[in-house]
Amino acid sequence: MTERRRRGGAERLHSKGPAPIPQLPRRAVRNPYPPMQILSADQVEAIHEASMHILENFGIEVMSARALSLFGQAGAIVDHASMNVRLDRGMVDAALKTAPAAYTLTPRNPGRAVRLGGDNIVFTLVAGPPNVHDMERGRRAGNLADYRDLIRLAQHFNCIHMLGNQVCAPIELPANSRHLDTYLANLTLTDKSFHVSAIGGGRALDGIRMMAISRGITMDRLADDPGVTTIISVNSPRRFDDMMSDGLMTMAEFGQSVCVTPFTLMGAMSPVTLAGALAQQNAEALFGVVLTQLVRPGAPVMYGAFTSNVDMRSGAPAFGTPENSKANVASGQLARRYGLPYRTTPGSASNAADVQGAYETMMALWGAVLGHGNLVYHAAGWQEGGLTASFEKFIIDVELIQHMMEFLRPIEVDEQELALDALQRVPTGGHFFGEPHTLARYATAFYQPLLSNWQNYEAWQEAGGLDATARATRVWKKALEEYEEPRLAEPVREELEDYVARRRQEIGSGEP
Amino acid sequence: MTERRRRGGAERLHSKGPAPIPQLPRRAVRNPYPPMQILSADQVEAIHEASMHILENFGIEVMSARALSLFGQAGAIVDHASMNVRLDRGMVDAALKTAPAAYTLTPRNPGRAVRLGGDNIVFTLVAGPPNVHDMERGRRAGNLADYRDLIRLAQHFNCIHMLGNQVCAPIELPANSRHLDTYLANLTLTDKSFHVSAIGGGRALDGIRMMAISRGITMDRLADDPGVTTIISVNSPRRFDDMMSDGLMTMAEFGQSVCVTPFTLMGAMSPVTLAGALAQQNAEALFGVVLTQLVRPGAPVMYGAFTSNVDMRSGAPAFGTPENSKANVASGQLARRYGLPYRTTPGSASNAADVQGAYETMMALWGAVLGHGNLVYHAAGWQEGGLTASFEKFIIDVELIQHMMEFLRPIEVDEQELALDALQRVPTGGHFFGEPHTLARYATAFYQPLLSNWQNYEAWQEAGGLDATARATRVWKKALEEYEEPRLAEPVREELEDYVARRRQEIGSGEP
Repeated sequence: MTERRRRGGAERLHSKGPAPIPQLPRRAVRNPYPPMQILSADQVEAIHEASMHILENFGIEVMSARALSLFGQAGAIVDHASMNVRLDRGMVDAALKTAPAAYTLTPRNPGRAVRLGGDNIVFTLVAGPPNVHDMERGRRAGNLADYRDLIRLAQHFNCIHMLGNQVCAPIELPANSRHLDTYLANLTLTDKSFHVSAIGGGRALDGIRMMAISRGITMDRLADDPGVTTIISVNSPRRFDDMMSDGLMTMAEFGQSVCVTPFTLMGAMSPVTLAGALAQQNAEALFGVVLTQLVRPGAPVMYGAFTSNVDMRSGAPAFGTPENSKANVASGQLARRYGLPYRTTPGSASNAADVQGAYETMMALWGAVLGHGNLVYHAAGWQEGGLTASFEKFIIDVELIQHMMEFLRPIEVDEQELALDALQRVPTGGHFFGEPHTLARYATAFYQPLLSNWQNYEAWQEAGGLDATARATRVWKKALEEYEEPRLAEPVREELEDYVARRRQEIGSGEP
Repeated sequence: MTERRRRGGAERLHSKGPAPIPQLPRRAVRNPYPPMQILSADQVEAIHEASMHILENFGIEVMSARALSLFGQAGAIVDHASMNVRLDRGMVDAALKTAPAAYTLTPRNPGRAVRLGGDNIVFTLVAGPPNVHDMERGRRAGNLADYRDLIRLAQHFNCIHMLGNQVCAPIELPANSRHLDTYLANLTLTDKSFHVSAIGGGRALDGIRMMAISRGITMDRLADDPGVTTIISVNSPRRFDDMMSDGLMTMAEFGQSVCVTPFTLMGAMSPVTLAGALAQQNAEALFGVVLTQLVRPGAPVMYGAFTSNVDMRSGAPAFGTPENSKANVASGQLARRYGLPYRTTPGSASNAADVQGAYETMMALWGAVLGHGNLVYHAAGWQEGGLTASFEKFIIDVELIQHMMEFLRPIEVDEQELALDALQRVPTGGHFFGEPHTLARYATAFYQPLLSNWQNYEAWQEAGGLDATARATRVWKKALEEYEEPRLAEPVREELEDYVARRRQEIGSGEP
């Protein structure tokens, strides 16, 4: 596929006439407010105790001989026949002593490094959908062209701090080597960090190696200064499969970030009650954390949460529900109890980039932010409960994220901000439009949205009366026009391309 | 206009076939979580000090001889030429000693009484738009038929606890007596509390008298056990006009609830900075609170907040912005500093029942809830920055309110909820669908939405592929079919109708 390289940003924009899409400048996002406490301290402890009970008495199935052996050596009770591992809480405590409370992922452009942990919030592109949708071309299977456009959008918008796993599956490519194509796209079309596939260690290792090449550093150096992450999705209840265990161990071995995320849909893969689902999530997440630290003490690892509910009439998963939002807040309390960075998600089950998509995502996003999520995964473009990456929903979500970022800028209160001079000058019943205090600040005083329309009804009608979803189509198309490919030194590009070609040949028709 | 009375609820629903619209049962809503602190204690005090400076040094214009006289008698510095009143903070303190921290409004059905203050949250129908919109009939001027349908919807949904001011202006009726028609509609088609118009004491008094008639009690009794409220919209900056002052004093005189809401759009009617706008809001709100207590110590009064920003490119008002959301949280801190019930609003500037309408309302609604709003005014149906009452947006907002209500149900953590038995029984990689723990709870474990669609994409497409806005049309139409007029004793109805007829004649072509 030939890539049209875009150059000469400033002139191009000026020559195009209309102003570029307004967006917030690149900045690290911190949450300055105290985390919401939706659980009492006693409730957190009760959930902790239940999860220890699960680990100590019920155990977790690990379908990996290497992992079973590591657990056995460390003193866990391992039943090799059932592949069941029971830990005592001492092993959890030991792992929590070495797992870092916060760490940085540095991609090839160090200016795009992200900090995970503490009060930091990192927003990522949706990951993993088999399908793609936009309002003009409709719904279609994932493919590399759409993949590339979607990561261009993620590159273009400053509030998307990193990519997730494959934004859509490029299904026209061979399943055993398409990870190479997507890594190459990530490293050439963006300069942000990304998620490597950990379905087996081979795919993970390719991503790690390609990140090292793009940064021009050795694997040892990368192990001390990680560049990529993966999500380990637990086969809840209480099972880590072979491929995921292998991926987890490979990532930890090479010092790269692992996020352990139990798939705890209440009523289906976990109890129908929030407390039970949280206890299970906690046990499974901590179990994965222990495994990372057995492989490499100090390996960067995150507490992942994905607790939502199903529609009990149909069994269909639901997201952005009140239960999901509460779980997002509560899970943050649990992650902080263990001093681990916290991953959460603002999902929606809507089949369209519609009002439901917006309010469900808002419910879950507020839960994520109030719970002090550090990694807000799938933050832009998620539709159909994760089965589709939507171009319009991406733009809508960028708008929601920017709203949140501005909400997280604390109110300043000082003499200038209190504006008593202006308040004294403006007569009763008058207005502040012409006040020097206003004029000095009006251009930057308020958040300027990229999607919201604040015209009056008549002007809006005259301009076509487009609703926000229709306007989102215009915005993503314009963003793709504005997009500029980040510079990549030619030798590095060649080395990456050589790596991909060599590995493609090595893999052949086998497993990576 | 003939009113078709609906009877025989249960049989009718059964005979109709499809299940009724699912909705949460009627319940008082309490916010069990600690209020968010977006301002530090020092910042709250700095804003308080600035507002005291405004009251003590700049003063407020009150275009009412009676109010000026009351302030003068109480020791304020009154300039009769400019109608400027300066208070010292001692007068504010004195008023706060007599203003109640919480109170109840009781409509003709005591089961629909609402508690304002403390941790209670009350959601109301949109109030005041000149226009009405639905997706089938389009946008049109307010009229009594739509008025009646919209209040039927408010009656039908349990989460709408009371009506606001006129849900749309019935402009085909004479401006000086249409308040009588709307009060009569409120009292016959609903049994919930409502907002009386306080544009002049006459309109307020008609509402108070009609509420007394509907409850079959004297005005004295009603003064001790209020039934209605009004919103006094301050002509910010720093002006109370004659009609509103008169309305405020009449309401207080008869012991009915007053909410004082400054109209502080940052950059227009108040400083462009949040701190300045909040200081102004605080001064104006407290000034109105003082006036209520000068009229009648102990009169029920609320701290109203409506601080948002304008689009600085056009001057158009914006709602549901990050600044609006922060103001909603901060204003709660101010209201609680004074021990007053707190009114706030989840607005949107969108011209359509679209994604923008949903996310803007969500931004402001979360601010309202995190700020522990007691009266969430305009909570359902608000569109176009308040210029239109939308049938679809009403349904969308009911869904948002119900989501919030369920978010506000605390997580329970005990042995039953932790579900360790179920967690032990379900095998690794298994599922919980058939577990007794699940079966005993599945029907009520999760919130069941009325608008969200959780079908998979194919089933959704097969069913028409309607987006949430299109589904909302179906829901409001069904709700109007399901609506049942609340019983009203015939003599009471006649007395109300007689009152309206008599007053209409008295008013003639003059002012009420």
